[in-house]
Amino acid sequence: MFRKTRLFTPGPTPLAPAAQFAMAAADLHHRTPEFRALYSRVLQQLQSFIGTKNDVVAIAASGTGAMEAAVSNLTSPGDKVLVLTAGKFGERWTSLAKAFGCAVTVVSAPYGETFSLDEVRKNLSPEVRVVFMQATETSTGIRHDISAVAKLLRGSDTLLVVDAITGLGTTHLDVDGDGIDIIIGGSQKALMVPPGMAYLAASQRAWDRMESSKQPRYYFDLRKERKSAAKGESSYTPAVALVAAIGAALDYIASQSNGDVAEGRRKLVANAELCAAMTRAAVQAMGLQLFAPSSPSAAVTAVKAPAGASATDVVKKFKAQFGGILSDGQGEMKGQIFRIAHIGYLDFMDCIAIIAGLEQVLAELTPGAFKLGDGLRAAQQVYRDAAAKKEA
Amino acid sequence: MFRKTRLFTPGPTPLAPAAQFAMAAADLHHRTPEFRALYSRVLQQLQSFIGTKNDVVAIAASGTGAMEAAVSNLTSPGDKVLVLTAGKFGERWTSLAKAFGCAVTVVSAPYGETFSLDEVRKNLSPEVRVVFMQATETSTGIRHDISAVAKLLRGSDTLLVVDAITGLGTTHLDVDGDGIDIIIGGSQKALMVPPGMAYLAASQRAWDRMESSKQPRYYFDLRKERKSAAKGESSYTPAVALVAAIGAALDYIASQSNGDVAEGRRKLVANAELCAAMTRAAVQAMGLQLFAPSSPSAAVTAVKAPAGASATDVVKKFKAQFGGILSDGQGEMKGQIFRIAHIGYLDFMDCIAIIAGLEQVLAELTPGAFKLGDGLRAAQQVYRDAAAKKEA
Repeated sequence: MFRKTRLFTPGPTPLAPAAQFAMAAADLHHRTPEFRALYSRVLQQLQSFIGTKNDVVAIAASGTGAMEAAVSNLTSPGDKVLVLTAGKFGERWTSLAKAFGCAVTVVSAPYGETFSLDEVRKNLSPEVRVVFMQATETSTGIRHDISAVAKLLRGSDTLLVVDAITGLGTTHLDVDGDGIDIIIGGSQKALMVPPGMAYLAASQRAWDRMESSKQPRYYFDLRKERKSAAKGESSYTPAVALVAAIGAALDYIASQSNGDVAEGRRKLVANAELCAAMTRAAVQAMGLQLFAPSSPSAAVTAVKAPAGASATDVVKKFKAQFGGILSDGQGEMKGQIFRIAHIGYLDFMDCIAIIAGLEQVLAELTPGAFKLGDGLRAAQQVYRDAAAKKEA
Repeated sequence: MFRKTRLFTPGPTPLAPAAQFAMAAADLHHRTPEFRALYSRVLQQLQSFIGTKNDVVAIAASGTGAMEAAVSNLTSPGDKVLVLTAGKFGERWTSLAKAFGCAVTVVSAPYGETFSLDEVRKNLSPEVRVVFMQATETSTGIRHDISAVAKLLRGSDTLLVVDAITGLGTTHLDVDGDGIDIIIGGSQKALMVPPGMAYLAASQRAWDRMESSKQPRYYFDLRKERKSAAKGESSYTPAVALVAAIGAALDYIASQSNGDVAEGRRKLVANAELCAAMTRAAVQAMGLQLFAPSSPSAAVTAVKAPAGASATDVVKKFKAQFGGILSDGQGEMKGQIFRIAHIGYLDFMDCIAIIAGLEQVLAELTPGAFKLGDGLRAAQQVYRDAAAKKEA
């Protein structure tokens, strides 16, 4: 049969058609009134998408670039910082902070779990300048409790930086209520656009801290970028086609809720949650085990490989047979877990198709261990109950 | 949840991405060497796609335009012609032939069935100048036996004209072996391109007949079009973007079989046949009845509406809930049957998603009558058996 390429990965995610068309049409120069109008509008839309009153800047970089910007703009060499980690992306904060000479304390949790709040509390002190964490850990599918961490920081001068690259648009976040000082997103996630652009919102406290930071920085100097943004410009050449694409994608997201970006984002989160619920019910009905059952994120579901098959084989066979791309585990989790994303432009039909393909693959890889259809029926029941609840 | 627009209709069908890109890039003039090279190549590819050595011409028109061209080029007013009909598209031949003043004899079958070959034989005589028929009747999902009709005509001067608009790329046809004198296709079917371009291949007997035809014709004068085609041109302004798109789609189809268009078309037919088999197994497992069980085409499956629900409601709810578009019955069959197409760019995941959505819709429209998952499992089993057979 034909095999359509379908991204079921936690980034890049399926492209919104409107974003594709906007990219193809992005034949414009970045130092013109036309681009300034577009850029200013996209930054405003991103503010609504993040759900913040804080100033937003965008950078031509992947999400890791914005993570580096948070470190290099908020810290000075020797600063004490606390990293909360439970997977590969948490570990990236540690690497970044160390690369910039920070004195890093790490509170970590085993893969598939979230860290203990008691441990966090014990490691906080007035000397800790910044806490770095994820909203959702993409490598394991766990969701962290940002509000609880934020509560521990209330009244202190410790800044809170959240990598919400997969969290934004899949998780309800209260950025200003929780007082998140920098929150980071990327184009290739719930924004339904290819990789290459990161964005972040910074609080007044964060902008103030940047004035005293002693790290070397140039391309990622957020203060400069903020001044450019106020004029509708990017300090350096922006990723023009991606800016246009993000604008179109946010228009599409807003169109789901009468043109309101923030409401559209809530629908996007609800969409991810229902995809996640269908998927979790399905894999459990198939007799598989979730890797992060205690606090699963709606961004991605990590599933333990079944007895007798490697996750790598599952992912390979799924792609070879159906053209769909799932994710293997990262690092030492490779082969142990596979991951199914629920981020962005996915619908009922995508979710069902993933489960159907997974059933075929597992039935073939582990003959006799799987009965076709059990996962599908469980997912259908979740959808039916959700639809009935919405109508009631 | 999000609802992606998905065409599960028997034309237009889902667009091949390569065709979309080619359309967007089709910024070229039709009286240039560049276009002539493209056009000549596309006409050659269409020959392989049809599976004929006969000359092919294309027209900026929908399929009905090419049907009219067959009538106006092969007949003269008062000519005796025979129309074999079993649905709305068969009836179109009757209307066309009458519009051009032919003396029309009709052999018809009830909707959902094919006509009797005995009836055809009884109505043939040396005076019958042309027989008009479909390869597959899109309105009912029936497949006609072209080879059997062709056999009845062998040795006579009666020409055979086949509307294969939905038949090409969904049905194995032996155009030259059967001696089909004109076979007609359209862009918006298995070619995975939007509507607006029709094409046909005509035998030497057909080209000869055109010389004696006394019908008025200008835009649809196939002899003129043939001369233009030999020079890589279209007589009148061609649908440039669609020509480029068809070229790209045929490249894609060929890419499924090492660049061989004819082999790619065989795979395309096998793809439609497996989609059709999965769908038929599913709807029967759901307790639904096929509308054309005796000789089902792989182009489209027509299903009788279940007790307690109108096909119109099924189609409407399916679109409202999932964004997918099925087809209602046409004319007096409206509300009685709904139709699921298997034409062109569809894969396993599309087929499964259609069935899943249909189950949700029917479970809601006729509470208690449908158990979720029965159809899906039946379709999965068909796929599994087909995959196992292919491997063996």
